[in-house]
Amino acid sequence: MAGKVCNVLITGANRGLGLEMVKQLAEMPCPGRRIFACCRDPNAPKAQSLQELAKKHPGVIHVIRLDVADLSSIQESAKQVGSVLGKDGLNLLVNNAAMAPYDNTQTAKLKDLQDTFQTNVIGTMMVTKEFLPYLREAAKSSGKPGMSCCKAAVINISTILSSITKAPENISLFPTLALTYRVSKAGLNMLTVCQAQEFKADGVLFTLLHPGWVRTDMGGADGEIDARESVSGMLRVMDSLTEKHNGGFLDYKGQPLPW
Amino acid sequence: MAGKVCNVLITGANRGLGLEMVKQLAEMPCPGRRIFACCRDPNAPKAQSLQELAKKHPGVIHVIRLDVADLSSIQESAKQVGSVLGKDGLNLLVNNAAMAPYDNTQTAKLKDLQDTFQTNVIGTMMVTKEFLPYLREAAKSSGKPGMSCCKAAVINISTILSSITKAPENISLFPTLALTYRVSKAGLNMLTVCQAQEFKADGVLFTLLHPGWVRTDMGGADGEIDARESVSGMLRVMDSLTEKHNGGFLDYKGQPLPW
Repeated sequence: MAGKVCNVLITGANRGLGLEMVKQLAEMPCPGRRIFACCRDPNAPKAQSLQELAKKHPGVIHVIRLDVADLSSIQESAKQVGSVLGKDGLNLLVNNAAMAPYDNTQTAKLKDLQDTFQTNVIGTMMVTKEFLPYLREAAKSSGKPGMSCCKAAVINISTILSSITKAPENISLFPTLALTYRVSKAGLNMLTVCQAQEFKADGVLFTLLHPGWVRTDMGGADGEIDARESVSGMLRVMDSLTEKHNGGFLDYKGQPLPW
Repeated sequence: MAGKVCNVLITGANRGLGLEMVKQLAEMPCPGRRIFACCRDPNAPKAQSLQELAKKHPGVIHVIRLDVADLSSIQESAKQVGSVLGKDGLNLLVNNAAMAPYDNTQTAKLKDLQDTFQTNVIGTMMVTKEFLPYLREAAKSSGKPGMSCCKAAVINISTILSSITKAPENISLFPTLALTYRVSKAGLNMLTVCQAQEFKADGVLFTLLHPGWVRTDMGGADGEIDARESVSGMLRVMDSLTEKHNGGFLDYKGQPLPW
């Protein structure tokens, strides 16, 4: 992504991987780039770091209110982003916002299950739906053949915990099973693979990334890498994606992962 | 299952595959078998065939009200089944109830998404949770080693459309993408694989079955087989399951399917 004009939107951008991605993208020299950093409540104390970062990069980072669990908020944010984009399209949508209750069958709470599917799966589907016209616009106006993150792409942040193949062996990774999280992310994987087919003719690339086990609020203190390493890895991988990776699932080092 | 004492509970038992499964099980000679045939509204016209079947097999088929999308209904049905079971456990739980909106990203409706996840994933999880004490009871009292559907098992009815591996090639099977259905069933697969690990020590077998593409209300008129063939195949497969199939995914002919 370094150096290329690329309008990017990131959900869940006020902390963890989302905030780090906004930071690294903003620090890359790239005239004309616009970064739409979306979070549930831009005025909350939890968004303060993002607001400070945005102040350092005026005209580059646009902080946008977007609650992915709320359809009207998604639609409102799409209007707002559209008015900034004008005739330019959106090149890259990073669906990063997620929640992860660490539960199992016995401890799973109905409300957590509903909220997690709403945020991790339905929210992701609806965000992609609402921003798709801008992605199509970008694909159309690029005039380039093939697929790439600089042309038009949706990157859905998944996790190795979503791999059904790997579940029996990695089920002990967390003290609890992270059952609801795993189920929601397996659903996200299917969503992404289907959308990769659904929007192939539009030239929009869909790829799933596993960020590694990262020391963030979500990953906990025992994570293997920090957010900086994860995000720089993911940005490198995004840079390398082509139509061959449409509907694919890679980790932050570019290694393919099994379903 | 033929000839063996086996207490079975089937959700979505008033039509399609569920009704056919109740029928075939009831017609097998097996003294002492109890079949709990569950459906949302036993008094509705849609449950008339089930009620007529139950009249032909008094003391064998117990029609139970169970709306898998409603936690209190699940809990109420578990109490009711428990009072019939007494000290006997439940040997086999078939989570068959499901809904299948045939949509895609553009046509998916928020309410359908929420209802489908609630029924196909959350409902299945909650039904298993509430009936687990009876399944554990059956496993414990069997005194037999290993796992089987005659001892204690949960069969979750999935679909080949849940296979992420197969999605790119079978996406044209339906005129619409069946996106929400696919996503929910991929989630169900993960749920089942996790529960297979979670309850391994209890001796409860968890296996996913693909019933084939069946001519039912859900499968449509173009299905390749009828409900009779699908169910007789699935019952044969269930009969053959052992601990080797814990967390597995097979079709109605016993062929393993990829995630």
